[in-house]
Amino acid sequence: MNPSESRRRLASSRVARLATLDAAGRPHLVPLVFAMGPDHIYSAVDHKPKRTPLLKRMRNIAANPRVALLADHYDDDWSRLWWVRVDGTAEIIETGPKWERAIAALVDKYPQYRGHPPDGAAIVITIERVAGWAADGRA
Amino acid sequence: MNPSESRRRLASSRVARLATLDAAGRPHLVPLVFAMGPDHIYSAVDHKPKRTPLLKRMRNIAANPRVALLADHYDDDWSRLWWVRVDGTAEIIETGPKWERAIAALVDKYPQYRGHPPDGAAIVITIERVAGWAADGRA
Repeated sequence: MNPSESRRRLASSRVARLATLDAAGRPHLVPLVFAMGPDHIYSAVDHKPKRTPLLKRMRNIAANPRVALLADHYDDDWSRLWWVRVDGTAEIIETGPKWERAIAALVDKYPQYRGHPPDGAAIVITIERVAGWAADGRA
Repeated sequence: MNPSESRRRLASSRVARLATLDAAGRPHLVPLVFAMGPDHIYSAVDHKPKRTPLLKRMRNIAANPRVALLADHYDDDWSRLWWVRVDGTAEIIETGPKWERAIAALVDKYPQYRGHPPDGAAIVITIERVAGWAADGRA
């Protein structure tokens, strides 16, 4: 898939899966809602943890910032399968203009966040590579 | 989510995402169709590579057998979100009874494979842990 079509499909996906590594080097996976800017992927934790420990994805990113993110489309007609993967470097942002940009992008994409914007830490992934594949070979 | 409900939802999912690590310790992600046995997850490569190099997921498993696999359900009604994750150890199986079991499980699950069973290497993941979460707290 060409890069602009890959980015278009990724940006319009409602969900993606984030792969991180824990401190022992084991892979971890979680689905997340996200928004996409030209150079970044944004996600956020809904509410500030008060009594709960930091989410595993956050601890993993603190230990190892290398991440991969995947959006894919499944269809029982396998000629319609496609996926887009991002390789990047993630950071945890808790405040400031970068955090505000992340939250604004998420609220803009998801009506579910309107009136209830996430107020926890944001995950900001700097996009290093976008790869895409479509079974029909299009785009 | 309780373990039996997690396993039930995972087994009936049509697609999952596999996280592997490359030799440099970077995470890699790819969607795949899969079948589930009591202790294993099965996937396979459709056709034996002839001129193409070994798929990256295969090279990664050879370098590091630790994998994670995720199936998730997205819905714009976020009270219906759920996911199931498997942590496990993967091996590449190219022939023999274990390969035959993998192929039989895949053909049994996917009508798309009938008449065209995969004839490439199988990925067999030994399930070490199944974790599940549902937004509605059910099951």
